[in-house]
Amino acid sequence: MKIDILTLFPDMFTGVLNQSIMKKAQEQNIFSYEAIDFRKYTESKHLKVDDYPYGGGAGMVLMPQPIFSAVDAIEKSAERPPRIILMCPQGERYTQKKAEEFAQEEHLIFICGHYEGYDERIRQHLVTDEISIGDFVLTGGELGAMVVIDSVVRLLPDSLGNEDSAKEDSFSTGLLEHPHYTRPATFKGYDVPEVLRSGHHGKIEEWRKKMSLKRTQERRPDLLEAYPLTDQEKQWLKDDNI
Amino acid sequence: MKIDILTLFPDMFTGVLNQSIMKKAQEQNIFSYEAIDFRKYTESKHLKVDDYPYGGGAGMVLMPQPIFSAVDAIEKSAERPPRIILMCPQGERYTQKKAEEFAQEEHLIFICGHYEGYDERIRQHLVTDEISIGDFVLTGGELGAMVVIDSVVRLLPDSLGNEDSAKEDSFSTGLLEHPHYTRPATFKGYDVPEVLRSGHHGKIEEWRKKMSLKRTQERRPDLLEAYPLTDQEKQWLKDDNI
Repeated sequence: MKIDILTLFPDMFTGVLNQSIMKKAQEQNIFSYEAIDFRKYTESKHLKVDDYPYGGGAGMVLMPQPIFSAVDAIEKSAERPPRIILMCPQGERYTQKKAEEFAQEEHLIFICGHYEGYDERIRQHLVTDEISIGDFVLTGGELGAMVVIDSVVRLLPDSLGNEDSAKEDSFSTGLLEHPHYTRPATFKGYDVPEVLRSGHHGKIEEWRKKMSLKRTQERRPDLLEAYPLTDQEKQWLKDDNI
Repeated sequence: MKIDILTLFPDMFTGVLNQSIMKKAQEQNIFSYEAIDFRKYTESKHLKVDDYPYGGGAGMVLMPQPIFSAVDAIEKSAERPPRIILMCPQGERYTQKKAEEFAQEEHLIFICGHYEGYDERIRQHLVTDEISIGDFVLTGGELGAMVVIDSVVRLLPDSLGNEDSAKEDSFSTGLLEHPHYTRPATFKGYDVPEVLRSGHHGKIEEWRKKMSLKRTQERRPDLLEAYPLTDQEKQWLKDDNI
């Protein structure tokens, strides 16, 4: 997968994308990225990329020209039309389903504004997707782009060492994960549940499923509503014995 | 504000936190942060921080000891009890309201796992908050911590140059932002709406409010439901003339 990021702060990406799993994924040619300062595409004499908003008001607005020109330049050398993703609070809420969709693409372009608005014409006439990672305000779109990239790249084939890890994740099964325990068996007086040390695989699986259902019911009833419960699972929840 | 981040990848934070607004906020002593490799707190001979899960299964689980010890060390030199935030998919969904709450604190500790589970005893007996930034899976908690830090620090007094910017943001007003336009008036044949160039402030304000309502209605009806509409606004939406 090829990823181009249009940003005024290309150095922001180095720390996140050049470590751990993201680093390995690049070394294995699973993806490559380029963080491009779109200021170099401005036709303004003073290298401006933003200007005052029409109609007045606080804050600056990113001009359409530098961003359109930067995307044009990328598209010229692209074999197929890339997906062009605008990171913004007004966008579609990002979910694991969207990550799975983006993971099917060969080429993604991210547009990241930084504490400024986008000229509406970028939104209307350039991008294919507007994405928001949540109902909170960030100083720029860069962190949102990193979140999307991280979640997409880890889904690419061979990206994670252990394939099983991705399948058992929260949101992949539709339920929150069950609790995990590791050594020591007793820590500060708190014990690991007996069942997990029993060696009885059937009971362990049942305990984990019950805990997963219970945690989802307590914390995210919205997820449970969308989950296709088996008769056994319905009974467990009804009996309230979990 | 003092921020401590427990992570196995302390270098991930440099690019994001040492640029732009986050850099300036540190230079102005608005906040300081330390990214601490909690591996240095392990009592394991082989510097282990994780181990196999009790009960079997894929993936590794972060042991309680190194993380408890790292938090202990931080708390010993803290004047008041810090807020201890675990980044995890099972946590409370992060919103702007939570950002405003965290912005009132003097000291935050973030615990970031990396493609591994947390021993449940960390969740139950150490942390004050469990936070998830959304329904998607990341390779670690680091990006989530950066998202929270960025959104909190920008709310601290004097953090943003222009105080007005924070107030008019999406999610602060309860509605999505209206469209923005800047130069040129015509770009690739697409014009800036006439009203914004009229100089008539009353009409501009009305247009912006209508666009903000319309966009929220189209994209985030859930936000509109929670928004206290005035009679005038109700009439606008009813008339469908926006």
